[in-house]
Amino acid sequence: MDVDIQINAAHVIPVIPEHQVFSHTSVIVKDGRIIDILPSNEANSIYKAQVTHELAHHILLPGLVNAHTHAAMNLFRGYADDMPLMSWLQDHIWPAEQKWTNSDFVHDGALLACAEMLRSGTTCFADMYFFPESTMRAAEQSGIRATIGLISIDFPSAYAQNAQDYLQKGLQVHDQLRGNPLIKTMFAPHGPYTVSDAPLQKIATLAEELDLPIHIHLHETKDEIQQSLKQYKMRPLERLQKLGLLTPRLMAVHMTQLEQDEIALCAEAGVNIVHCPESNLKLASGFCPVQELSDAGINVAIGTDSAASNNDLDMFSELHTTALLTKGITQNASAGQAADILKMATLNGARALGLNDHIGSIEKGKYADLIAIEIDNIESLPLYNPISHVVYSAHRQQVSDVWIAGRQIIKDHSLLTMDINELSQIAHSWQEKISA
Amino acid sequence: MDVDIQINAAHVIPVIPEHQVFSHTSVIVKDGRIIDILPSNEANSIYKAQVTHELAHHILLPGLVNAHTHAAMNLFRGYADDMPLMSWLQDHIWPAEQKWTNSDFVHDGALLACAEMLRSGTTCFADMYFFPESTMRAAEQSGIRATIGLISIDFPSAYAQNAQDYLQKGLQVHDQLRGNPLIKTMFAPHGPYTVSDAPLQKIATLAEELDLPIHIHLHETKDEIQQSLKQYKMRPLERLQKLGLLTPRLMAVHMTQLEQDEIALCAEAGVNIVHCPESNLKLASGFCPVQELSDAGINVAIGTDSAASNNDLDMFSELHTTALLTKGITQNASAGQAADILKMATLNGARALGLNDHIGSIEKGKYADLIAIEIDNIESLPLYNPISHVVYSAHRQQVSDVWIAGRQIIKDHSLLTMDINELSQIAHSWQEKISA
Repeated sequence: MDVDIQINAAHVIPVIPEHQVFSHTSVIVKDGRIIDILPSNEANSIYKAQVTHELAHHILLPGLVNAHTHAAMNLFRGYADDMPLMSWLQDHIWPAEQKWTNSDFVHDGALLACAEMLRSGTTCFADMYFFPESTMRAAEQSGIRATIGLISIDFPSAYAQNAQDYLQKGLQVHDQLRGNPLIKTMFAPHGPYTVSDAPLQKIATLAEELDLPIHIHLHETKDEIQQSLKQYKMRPLERLQKLGLLTPRLMAVHMTQLEQDEIALCAEAGVNIVHCPESNLKLASGFCPVQELSDAGINVAIGTDSAASNNDLDMFSELHTTALLTKGITQNASAGQAADILKMATLNGARALGLNDHIGSIEKGKYADLIAIEIDNIESLPLYNPISHVVYSAHRQQVSDVWIAGRQIIKDHSLLTMDINELSQIAHSWQEKISA
Repeated sequence: MDVDIQINAAHVIPVIPEHQVFSHTSVIVKDGRIIDILPSNEANSIYKAQVTHELAHHILLPGLVNAHTHAAMNLFRGYADDMPLMSWLQDHIWPAEQKWTNSDFVHDGALLACAEMLRSGTTCFADMYFFPESTMRAAEQSGIRATIGLISIDFPSAYAQNAQDYLQKGLQVHDQLRGNPLIKTMFAPHGPYTVSDAPLQKIATLAEELDLPIHIHLHETKDEIQQSLKQYKMRPLERLQKLGLLTPRLMAVHMTQLEQDEIALCAEAGVNIVHCPESNLKLASGFCPVQELSDAGINVAIGTDSAASNNDLDMFSELHTTALLTKGITQNASAGQAADILKMATLNGARALGLNDHIGSIEKGKYADLIAIEIDNIESLPLYNPISHVVYSAHRQQVSDVWIAGRQIIKDHSLLTMDINELSQIAHSWQEKISA
């Protein structure tokens, strides 16, 4: 049978079935989708591929899904570190955003972020930022898959004037997108402390009508809870429940402040939770109880948050940190199993975005969003368990090849869709301006 | 003036003076030691170097000091993960050690570990394992600086029969070393639960006589404390105090279980504490209160622990994890400042080993133990603060050049002292044996 691509890999971690590794296995791709996964020694007699990739010293994985970032903020990487959250925001990040954020800034920052994500094995990301159409353009340029948040906030910015203006501009972006197979949109009300009841209710209604996810920062810090209790006489989660937002459409990001009944509530409502371990640690926000959430049946995904609070967009590092931190805070070394964490960073992210029928695992019928990591270096040896290796030893620099819907985006460490020197110049030029 | 080496770097982080970055700066080396640090535009008129290195897109740092590892266990990388500590030790690691640990295993594992450490910017490590003379040989072969632990434990192993035998073999290793400038030794009683009073007292006396550090796992887990209370009617730290071990010679590794008076006791006694954040997380041992210890004036260093519990020997990753975890557990985003954490991984490690007059910072008179990291990649851009960059963004793959006492060990990412293909073959060959 004639097919487009045959990838022969030393090891394939399909994510589904769970906890499995298929060695000496081939993945067959036709029209952008995976049509077969079979032993390599059987593949050649069945399929005739236009292109065959020999990955004899590699692990093939589904592309990673970064379920929360602000891509444009790559231009603020390391701009302000080691500060208390409020000083970081009020004295540094917000003034810098006030000064610099415009359509070009967002496009250039997002372009750099897409390159960084692709080079580190992320094939799909969920974004929230001003000027979402600029992030969209950058994503398209790079070839990455993305769900772009249509940001809403009560306060004026260079992007929009008020809640209504944000929503209207967001809907325009959504309308522009139709027909683009890689780019989707979602509503992205910034947070319960920055968006009032009326726009949140409006978003809940629109999300149903348009069948879109809702992406929101939620229960990130103690202060947020205190402020909500003062202003609304209830915790943010209860408020969102009353406003009709607690549904399987919701991607609640951070969730470091949770009581037992709130965990049960999220489980019952089918809310998705996005864990951003390095951001939560760096900003001292608290600990998201990942193991408890998973045990309660909640779909937990993983995000990097922005380069301003991380300071990278490296999902391999987040995998590592999620596994270690889960063990640390549960005081249980068998919590946070590698295979479960890897599922969070792939299939669970896809599920949170409503894309789990299309991406997130290496299964027949899904898009060929695939990444290969090289394991033939002394830092990867010996290798007893490929799943463990991915979570506990692998670094993003091992990512050698990336495909999205069957299109090769990275080949033997080279980014095919963008000129890396040009990207470097863009970054240098913003650095000079912003440092000046 | 004729000198050996002139390194012109875009940025130099000297560690001392603290919190400083010198840009466009040259480091001058003669006879293995740093003799000057000055603006590059002045260096050429004063010095005539045999070799000049242009590091126009690099940060130059003191070499990192890995203050606790078991190098040979690189051969057990990822051998058993996601298990409770006791099952990990009793059902997997100890039986594997029983079966495999011999002089060749230790040499080969340590050789791989030395290569991994050098490639990730570690120029000095503190080790504890069986067959220390094999680790010593590996270190010498690689060109790394090391302080080799003379292990003591009450129980028989392939290496030694009993407490007396361990000590005697250790002293033989110590005697062999005299005259080797890069390799030092220290006593390494395994832990308070595996070494009884008599050998601990003997070690305290010998350490004074021979002027050596004492390296011990201490207050690693709650179980250790409980067991000590049962057996000795006191906590391990109190027991070591009674045995005369609480002195500035002591390197107490882990220290996740500490009461307020114990912190004061360590501060008063001048005990050094070695923090192994990733190992403590992965084995769910508890949290070492790094910020409190530093605030109390205790010298805190950083170690990777072994590749079996980490699963790498990457000090850049430990820097990152130390900074993030310190903020997370103190709930203070301004705790764990980047410059302080970098000092822990360099000068504080040197101080714990009694080597702070010789290494740990870029100062005149110290050995030229130097590393350069490349910053001209999109993952490093923009770059607003080089110290922040090292702790929050840098990855070990950015390490391009390494010098130890002025000898270049890594040049433009190539390891000059070992054949990397041969190392890879060694690792593969042990993997096959151990997996069989």
